[in-house]
Amino acid sequence: MIRSMEELTQAACSTPALKMAVACAEDAPVLDAVKHAYDKNIIIPVLIGDKQKIFKEAETAGISIDSWEIIDIPDKKAACEEAVRLASEGKISLIMKGMVDTSIIMKAVLNKEYGLYTGGVLSHVGVLEVAGFDRLFAITDSAINIAPDLDAKVSIIKNAVEVEHALGNEMPKVAALCAVEKVNPKMECTLDAAKLEEMNKEGLITGCLIGGPFALDNAVSKEAAAHKGITSPLAGNADVLFVPDLEAGNLLIKAMEYFGHARKAGVIMGARIPIALTSRATAPESKMYTIAISKLIATLKEARNA
Amino acid sequence: MIRSMEELTQAACSTPALKMAVACAEDAPVLDAVKHAYDKNIIIPVLIGDKQKIFKEAETAGISIDSWEIIDIPDKKAACEEAVRLASEGKISLIMKGMVDTSIIMKAVLNKEYGLYTGGVLSHVGVLEVAGFDRLFAITDSAINIAPDLDAKVSIIKNAVEVEHALGNEMPKVAALCAVEKVNPKMECTLDAAKLEEMNKEGLITGCLIGGPFALDNAVSKEAAAHKGITSPLAGNADVLFVPDLEAGNLLIKAMEYFGHARKAGVIMGARIPIALTSRATAPESKMYTIAISKLIATLKEARNA
Repeated sequence: MIRSMEELTQAACSTPALKMAVACAEDAPVLDAVKHAYDKNIIIPVLIGDKQKIFKEAETAGISIDSWEIIDIPDKKAACEEAVRLASEGKISLIMKGMVDTSIIMKAVLNKEYGLYTGGVLSHVGVLEVAGFDRLFAITDSAINIAPDLDAKVSIIKNAVEVEHALGNEMPKVAALCAVEKVNPKMECTLDAAKLEEMNKEGLITGCLIGGPFALDNAVSKEAAAHKGITSPLAGNADVLFVPDLEAGNLLIKAMEYFGHARKAGVIMGARIPIALTSRATAPESKMYTIAISKLIATLKEARNA
Repeated sequence: MIRSMEELTQAACSTPALKMAVACAEDAPVLDAVKHAYDKNIIIPVLIGDKQKIFKEAETAGISIDSWEIIDIPDKKAACEEAVRLASEGKISLIMKGMVDTSIIMKAVLNKEYGLYTGGVLSHVGVLEVAGFDRLFAITDSAINIAPDLDAKVSIIKNAVEVEHALGNEMPKVAALCAVEKVNPKMECTLDAAKLEEMNKEGLITGCLIGGPFALDNAVSKEAAAHKGITSPLAGNADVLFVPDLEAGNLLIKAMEYFGHARKAGVIMGARIPIALTSRATAPESKMYTIAISKLIATLKEARNA
């Protein structure tokens, strides 16, 4: 089981490199991260975008991209569609979002013509390392789904569980987080959390152990859980921090980053291939971790389909 | 302006001690915190609760309470009502919650017979210190209001602003937090945040500067805000982190505590006097900070009423 960003990078280096399309690659920080991942033999890039701008940004980043495949499509929508087309033809194994709005790349992925979308929900999974903890945390969904209903929550959890499996965690512990650890009919979140735990017990959601409702302290701190008399095997041991909605998730993941100095990777799950998603404010090393986790997920998906 | 828990404690020591009722004082950790605050001349305690148990818990904590006023009321509801009655008669200036459910003490405070409740909304304000930041953060509301409407949000902000004023911050910067920094009609939180900013500009909410919607990163990190091209004077400078609902607030405050190792104080605002509120899992020093901030608020309230 991978427990740190160092282990994640090592694991991503130690399997054969996969082809990764970069949709709208005209961005120096993205190219810099791609170069690092390429040098570590994690991926082989296929750059899609405005070729002239791509070369200019590569110069800015001070890197040579002469040996890389570049597909010149200046239009952003068309560039995203080309990345999706290559994926549907099996010519690439993962996509990285470049200088383009997430909504544009999502639309291309959801386009039924290319068959990359197989139903369910697309959701974001953040993978974070916080100093002092013995494992990585998966946070979901902090970026895409505004107010998921119970069905969507099930899909979102399944997507996160797949990420955990790619990290070698075969039975991840999923904490369905709320403000409190007791079911309160006035708080829908707590009802859903209890239902998700029940569905897991009934075998409707497999490959993980779900518990809820959990308050964050009881999910990540054994001491806090003990104070409350919570004895569940999940108490203090959660791997997946499943949040009730976008506002809660976004505050959690950003608090981990800005107050907890977490190292962060992020990937969109739910399509036939993973989509590596970095934000502009993300540190360069984080972008590399994002490519590394996306590659591991792509490797797992290909092994399952083989 | 008070910028750290050390400065907070010093400030609370340097004004005349106020009488504080401890509702249901039969709890060793609470008595320990009260003793520390008493020794620093922050407060003079009036213990209310089961006298026999109070003495037993004091013995457990290894502290002498012989010189303190103790009112023997074993029934928890009656003990809370006595604390509220003393407050309404002006015999004490603040209340600390002891070994009793928050809901029981809240009911006593809301009881119109005692006149402690003057309309508006009772809300929790957390005051947190995170290493690496040059100021304390006020987080609200992470503990009481589940899904406040716009009117309730106004009350909640006013309560937090009063806490900031007690900290000597005369024009606190309030960030109305959402998952994104742009208004999105699909996200009610962003609409409310924009309205709150507007109400502040129109002079309907005074004594503070409100901006929103803000994502957390842009509210606390100047670098992140610059990446997004946000130039508001609030960008990276927020004092009050105002959250849209209980789930989001609870995750934020607990993430600051458990991932950001924040020192935390907490107080219930909205009544005629502040109610010092600590949770069982809170560190002993945090309980002291909670008494200190509550005392400063009570001092400010008395000065305004004088």
